[in-house]
Amino acid sequence: MNIVLLDPRQTQSDIWKISSNRQLEHLHRHLAVKVGDTLKVGVRDGDRYLTEIIAVSEQEILIRPIQKEVIPAKLPMTLIVALPRPKVLRRLIMDAVTMGVQQMILIHSYRVDKSYWQTPFLQQLEHYITLGLEQAGDTIAPKIELYKRFKPFVEDVLPQLIHAHSPAYVAHPYIEQQMPFAIEHACTVIIGPEGGFIPYEIDLLIKNGCQAVSLGNRILRTETAIPYVIGRLFSTS
Amino acid sequence: MNIVLLDPRQTQSDIWKISSNRQLEHLHRHLAVKVGDTLKVGVRDGDRYLTEIIAVSEQEILIRPIQKEVIPAKLPMTLIVALPRPKVLRRLIMDAVTMGVQQMILIHSYRVDKSYWQTPFLQQLEHYITLGLEQAGDTIAPKIELYKRFKPFVEDVLPQLIHAHSPAYVAHPYIEQQMPFAIEHACTVIIGPEGGFIPYEIDLLIKNGCQAVSLGNRILRTETAIPYVIGRLFSTS
Repeated sequence: MNIVLLDPRQTQSDIWKISSNRQLEHLHRHLAVKVGDTLKVGVRDGDRYLTEIIAVSEQEILIRPIQKEVIPAKLPMTLIVALPRPKVLRRLIMDAVTMGVQQMILIHSYRVDKSYWQTPFLQQLEHYITLGLEQAGDTIAPKIELYKRFKPFVEDVLPQLIHAHSPAYVAHPYIEQQMPFAIEHACTVIIGPEGGFIPYEIDLLIKNGCQAVSLGNRILRTETAIPYVIGRLFSTS
Repeated sequence: MNIVLLDPRQTQSDIWKISSNRQLEHLHRHLAVKVGDTLKVGVRDGDRYLTEIIAVSEQEILIRPIQKEVIPAKLPMTLIVALPRPKVLRRLIMDAVTMGVQQMILIHSYRVDKSYWQTPFLQQLEHYITLGLEQAGDTIAPKIELYKRFKPFVEDVLPQLIHAHSPAYVAHPYIEQQMPFAIEHACTVIIGPEGGFIPYEIDLLIKNGCQAVSLGNRILRTETAIPYVIGRLFSTS
């Protein structure tokens, strides 16, 4: 946690109150905060501030905003991922949010286990977005969308995301063309399920405007591939 | 699992036997293998082969090597990491091995909890190396070393890793100089603990030949920073 994220409703008076158990525990246990310390605080979907701690107890911490701070810029990127196992999903959301992905889309695919769509984590996305924002020092939640049908998504929604200055790359092993690096434009990146997209899916993605590109001859797990690809694509930003 | 890794002692006759429960379960449950299928198999610290399955039962699978395959190249990189929490350590070892890191060094640092050195995972590194190699399709284990004392490591061991054509970069937030990208030479990368290195440690690292470089103004978790940095540094390989 590199900032404490508050709901806008918690920041309507001059003195703000931190009362979430999770946040209090972190501030007491890991940071051992005390009156007079400064603390970085963000308002969910709003500004970020340097604040001063003016009262500390087990049940609440009172703070006063001192000055506005800059929110880190988002990456001009839409990340499309075949819905992974629930445990992986949590980390993937947190990581993508932390790294500044602007928009995320979770899709179905032939090798996605249908039971994954029943996981309670999909109802808790807001929580993992908050954790990712607090890690990054960001306040603005990315847009996250879910599409449970592959074909209508690829044929009707995906083409609207692809433009001359914003191509879509689908990571695919055993292919000649490499994933680009150090790009200076927007893009969409599509990451398949464990085991990969099936040939029909790859063909449909290509037919609808995607470029199939390789990440090298080592096959990475979804949760590893995402930071690897982002580090590679946006190394100049 | 993208190859099945066998011990050299399992591959001394013409017919090889897969008998590990973990590997059998994967082959039966996820791949539903049958006689006549081909299977990618590696010999630990040896060659990699395409094999043919010649017998299948619940207790064992018999295979026959058909032809040698190419092992993916390693990255010319030494990765030094402040020992993380045990849960993170497992993933970090697997990921670094999968991505092809040539050498890993785990070190102590002021913000590393001393209890982390007692984790049983440190006795099971071989297992996580195997999982990482099987994910990557690699057979050669990287060298992993542990140093429980920061100062002697930085003063006596680290300088021997740094050369004119192989610099050392320590990731450090709030610094002007950016981590390089798309390099075409060897390097050492040093990743601090959650909360970062303390100023004394950063100073000692710089005094002993390291360059402090930033990964941008979003602070990543250790396990996210490693694939992000590797994707960024080695994007041309």
